Amino acid sequence: MPVDFTFGAFKTTVHVSRELPRIEGIAADSGTAAGFFRPLIICDEHTVPITDAVCGAAFPRCVLKSGESNKGWLAVETILRAAREAGLGRDGVFVGVGGGVIGDLAAFAASIYMRGCGLALVSTTLLGMVDAGVGGKTGFDLFGVKNLAGTFYPARHVYMPLESLSALPLPEWKSGFAELIKTAVLAGDDFLDELQALAAAFPAGAFVSGFGRNSGFPPDFASRLLEGDAGRLRRCISRAVEFKGCVVEADPRETGQTRMLLNLGHTFAHALESTAGLGTISHGEAVAWGLVRACELGLALGITPRARAEKIKNLVMRYGYETAAPHSLAGDTETFIKALNADKKKKAGNLTFIVPDEKNARMFTAASGADMDTIKQTARGALSF
Amino acid sequence: MPVDFTFGAFKTTVHVSRELPRIEGIAADSGTAAGFFRPLIICDEHTVPITDAVCGAAFPRCVLKSGESNKGWLAVETILRAAREAGLGRDGVFVGVGGGVIGDLAAFAASIYMRGCGLALVSTTLLGMVDAGVGGKTGFDLFGVKNLAGTFYPARHVYMPLESLSALPLPEWKSGFAELIKTAVLAGDDFLDELQALAAAFPAGAFVSGFGRNSGFPPDFASRLLEGDAGRLRRCISRAVEFKGCVVEADPRETGQTRMLLNLGHTFAHALESTAGLGTISHGEAVAWGLVRACELGLALGITPRARAEKIKNLVMRYGYETAAPHSLAGDTETFIKALNADKKKKAGNLTFIVPDEKNARMFTAASGADMDTIKQTARGALSF
Repeated sequence: MPVDFTFGAFKTTVHVSRELPRIEGIAADSGTAAGFFRPLIICDEHTVPITDAVCGAAFPRCVLKSGESNKGWLAVETILRAAREAGLGRDGVFVGVGGGVIGDLAAFAASIYMRGCGLALVSTTLLGMVDAGVGGKTGFDLFGVKNLAGTFYPARHVYMPLESLSALPLPEWKSGFAELIKTAVLAGDDFLDELQALAAAFPAGAFVSGFGRNSGFPPDFASRLLEGDAGRLRRCISRAVEFKGCVVEADPRETGQTRMLLNLGHTFAHALESTAGLGTISHGEAVAWGLVRACELGLALGITPRARAEKIKNLVMRYGYETAAPHSLAGDTETFIKALNADKKKKAGNLTFIVPDEKNARMFTAASGADMDTIKQTARGALSF
Repeated sequence: MPVDFTFGAFKTTVHVSRELPRIEGIAADSGTAAGFFRPLIICDEHTVPITDAVCGAAFPRCVLKSGESNKGWLAVETILRAAREAGLGRDGVFVGVGGGVIGDLAAFAASIYMRGCGLALVSTTLLGMVDAGVGGKTGFDLFGVKNLAGTFYPARHVYMPLESLSALPLPEWKSGFAELIKTAVLAGDDFLDELQALAAAFPAGAFVSGFGRNSGFPPDFASRLLEGDAGRLRRCISRAVEFKGCVVEADPRETGQTRMLLNLGHTFAHALESTAGLGTISHGEAVAWGLVRACELGLALGITPRARAEKIKNLVMRYGYETAAPHSLAGDTETFIKALNADKKKKAGNLTFIVPDEKNARMFTAASGADMDTIKQTARGALSF
């Protein structure tokens, strides 16, 4: 069943399904009069086969290079040029087919093309489904800072075909799981328990050696993703979509205190991605590492109970993530703190962090020198538990 | 008295005044807690003296090259880099000091910096006051197309210090008067009459030789702008602000039929600016020329009464604009039609035009080959009256 959300002036309908959507359905959903549907298909090297299955070769298509390191203005300009060359007007529809990077780029380009054209997204990765695809944040990297430039521009329709997950390589899975764990911390312990059970449904060693094509992925796993034990994954995706959608409905442009909660783990993660060099470490690996730092910070501040911090850290480790600090890609402490200080979400010049509390999570603003010392200790591993 | 408008989720307060605003007042208006006002001042070569008067040298400043030909991504990136280097967070405030180009660029950059930071504009030109400064359209030129990329992002506060007009060179005056005439056509004949009277208040020959500094501008004119006969100008500016603000309140993102009306003269104007080469002809010269084309089109279609078309054309000529078609910078008819066809505001693939009607103006969609023939005739001067 499609789920509808209202994000300020925008409406988004999310379609979680087994099969890929067909372009005829996307056209019908777009509400364009018959014969006037003018799409630009945006995908990357990896999602060309999925794109072929969605719409054949009948529509103008813009194929971008994959990966975070190509998420710059050049990619945005490439999309805008393709739209211009295809003669799209403001009533054209950008259709992004891919993961978080393609979603962010296609949505940003749609938000500025002629001051905003139509937008639909086909999320083909776990990250796209549980996080990036819903909520309207768009953006690209600039001056080495992740998503320094961006807009709020929710897609009218987001398609989440679970089928597309079966070929996903390990790093993409891990990007998604980290956001799922983050969501579960925010939503409460029974979601954490569900993720613990989900981990058990995956083949032994999957989180180390992978479960996608070319990585020892068992042949029946695609169907198990959707039914039986692994049907849990579908439930977890739907639950994450519902949770994020409701948070964003409450605070679409992050002007209040609600949407910021989704930033759990991300202040540390963005700084790590930045010091490592954008694209060097997957967003999920960074978020997972950041989640554990947030637990350490919360413990030191007396906000996170030790049992909860341990539950979260154990789950992060169960999914095969590196959790130790200092991180080998974080540079020295001063470099890392400098990267932290470039964070977008400062309040009156002070860094803010989301830290787990008894049941969910809450915001903490680092307003004093002592706070910053605690954060430095976290970064260099002095608060490991 | 400041005037408040609500544009969708945004609020804009417009301050028409005699004197320049001071940065202390801008800080207070911004609502930032005392001591936490973090501005980036954005101006161009021409508005440096005004900027000095507004805020001295105490704040980080980004000085752009002047003119439409510098209104590209490079200028946007320059602003974003300055903001990044100044360490601005999302709670920073971009303060644009200048005309339409600076306003569009500063506002676009503000709309994407960390997905949207604070924004105040000081409109120093007539165009900025009567048109570009109010309503939230931002943008920059790309692939030779004016404002191909942009967003809707209304400034929280817009300051319109009439004092800054006294040094305005002739082309800038003419850019503003064209938008004033356009607004008057939309608002009704008594506003047209007021503009007729306003023209009489200017010194003889002013619309040919200029009335700004270094162009025979009478010494008492600055005060006459604000009082006496020329106090009409202040009334006309306030009236245009009110009219435009109300139109945009009714249809902030131009998704309905209302805001499109402001496009009167602009479909032809944008095509002319594009064929001439962006920056070759002032926006106002192009809009004035486009207004007369819109009258011709309306006459041919039986939408514009002949007496009204003549009244509008006479006013355009009274303000010293070139009205003849074909325009020497428009290229041949095929080139011009190609430029028209790149217009952003197509409906289902068809060009749309706003044409004057009995009292105001209405939308016309060129849906048939015969319609396009009429438009071609207009472009090559076959419908001159």
